[in-house]
Amino acid sequence: MRKLYIVGIGAGDPDHVTMQAVKAIRQVDVFFVIGKGAEKRELLDVRTAVLDEHMNHPFEVVEIADPPRDRAPADYTGTILDWHDRRSALLESAFARVDGVGGILVWGDPSLYDSTLRMIERVLERRIVTFEYEVIPGITSAQALAARHRMVLHRIGEPVHITTGRKLRESGLGESALVMLDGECSFTEVGGDDIHIWWGAYLGMPDEVLIEGPLRAVERRILSTRAELRAAKGWIMDIYLLRRG
Amino acid sequence: MRKLYIVGIGAGDPDHVTMQAVKAIRQVDVFFVIGKGAEKRELLDVRTAVLDEHMNHPFEVVEIADPPRDRAPADYTGTILDWHDRRSALLESAFARVDGVGGILVWGDPSLYDSTLRMIERVLERRIVTFEYEVIPGITSAQALAARHRMVLHRIGEPVHITTGRKLRESGLGESALVMLDGECSFTEVGGDDIHIWWGAYLGMPDEVLIEGPLRAVERRILSTRAELRAAKGWIMDIYLLRRG
Ligand SMILES: C[S@@+](CC[C@H](N)C(=O)[O-])C[C@H]1O[C@@H](n2cnc3c(N)ncnc32)[C@H](O)[C@@H]1O
Ligand SMILES: C[S@@+](CC[C@H](N)C(=O)[O-])C[C@H]1O[C@@H](n2cnc3c(N)ncnc32)[C@H](O)[C@@H]1O
Repeated sequence: MRKLYIVGIGAGDPDHVTMQAVKAIRQVDVFFVIGKGAEKRELLDVRTAVLDEHMNHPFEVVEIADPPRDRAPADYTGTILDWHDRRSALLESAFARVDGVGGILVWGDPSLYDSTLRMIERVLERRIVTFEYEVIPGITSAQALAARHRMVLHRIGEPVHITTGRKLRESGLGESALVMLDGECSFTEVGGDDIHIWWGAYLGMPDEVLIEGPLRAVERRILSTRAELRAAKGWIMDIYLLRRG
Repeated sequence: MRKLYIVGIGAGDPDHVTMQAVKAIRQVDVFFVIGKGAEKRELLDVRTAVLDEHMNHPFEVVEIADPPRDRAPADYTGTILDWHDRRSALLESAFARVDGVGGILVWGDPSLYDSTLRMIERVLERRIVTFEYEVIPGITSAQALAARHRMVLHRIGEPVHITTGRKLRESGLGESALVMLDGECSFTEVGGDDIHIWWGAYLGMPDEVLIEGPLRAVERRILSTRAELRAAKGWIMDIYLLRRG
């Protein structure tokens, strides 16, 4: 493999794709798809839509099954690191078989809660395959949320704090937080009557839902909406901003 | 004005523009450009490049001079709010003269350290002009930095903290911080021997410069590079990630 492009394709809307991503994709001979299981077929559909619309020559797709992992481990970091190792080994042998330019399409942006770059570094550290690689940024789900609610992520001159459901439960809410990867509706565990929430699910996709309001007034509506959507579709992806005052 | 698009165009490379942004831009009859002064001519050049490449019909450009403001005010928030008011009043009268669809091209993403959305809300609160508006996300300078350094913004499972030079000086460095809007090289005031820095200036532009390394080993190089570049071009835009350990 001569070169590998790691391309952010945005977080749901195929039109999130940038011109830079389109140009990179058009260099690619073989795409690697790291399988996420059947429930996320629609995520693959977004990738397919991007390739169908922008690809201008024949290409190959190599699917790499995701190795299983413990979803509620005692040792979170250790379990994730081990999982990255097993994924890296699978990628390595797939890369070894390619002659030309490879590509990996990443959901959102490769720099935000995505393990692709860590796996690539690990593959390169093993020194069994070598290649150049380039990263193309993509629209994140945080930006998709902000755009759909037409909001700014921070108060004037204040920081932006992006975190996970797990961390929100561990460390509580400061002034504000943008929360991702929260399967447990951790906003219900944040205390206070002066908190506002801007919530969004399936952003940029046909089933997009937005809810916004004082947290204590809308949290039950979010819980029931989320449960219904999840039951109907079999999976959900949601993200929210919490802000005090 | 029937509708206003607030379009993120990315942070330096005209190819950061998304398909969604291109489609929005093609609806626009009149673009409003809020002037930033001659020293940032190159920022306008990026906007011009985007329009030259993607626009498919004639359009008008209305330049709105930026009202002056105190750059080192005692009351930071108050000064900024007052400045937003004066800018909003100028926008309002420009909007009132438009028949059709308006557009504002925003550097990076409209949700990150940009005042356009706050000004639009203020214009609408005055109820003198009314219009629909839609926000299109764009690649931020934070993502451009991460992509060029091929890095992830957070440690596994840890938060991402985005802040300003001013706030970094006030509150110090926690585990890590992505620092924007720092005219004063505040990284030199952060204590500790275990800090790594990933720095970038003019990201995505022809003069892009990247420096990375242990903070104490590279900070002098960043200071002198930054001073030279700034002197040569008359302005600089830079951003960096600091991380402990
Ligand atoms: C593994 S992370 C990947 C994030 C991605 N790299 C990005 O830049 O947005 C997955 C999390 O992103 C958020 N997410 C991604 N796409 C989303 C969408 N279309 N709507 C709502 N949330 C989304 C959810 O919080 C989800 O748990
Ligand atoms: C007023 S803020 C606007 C941020 C923009 N909305 C975004 O999404 O990146 C300007 C700051 O963004 C950063 N910045 C924007 N473009 C940049 C570039 N091309 N290279 C380096 N830093 C940049 C710098 O820290 C600068 O002080």
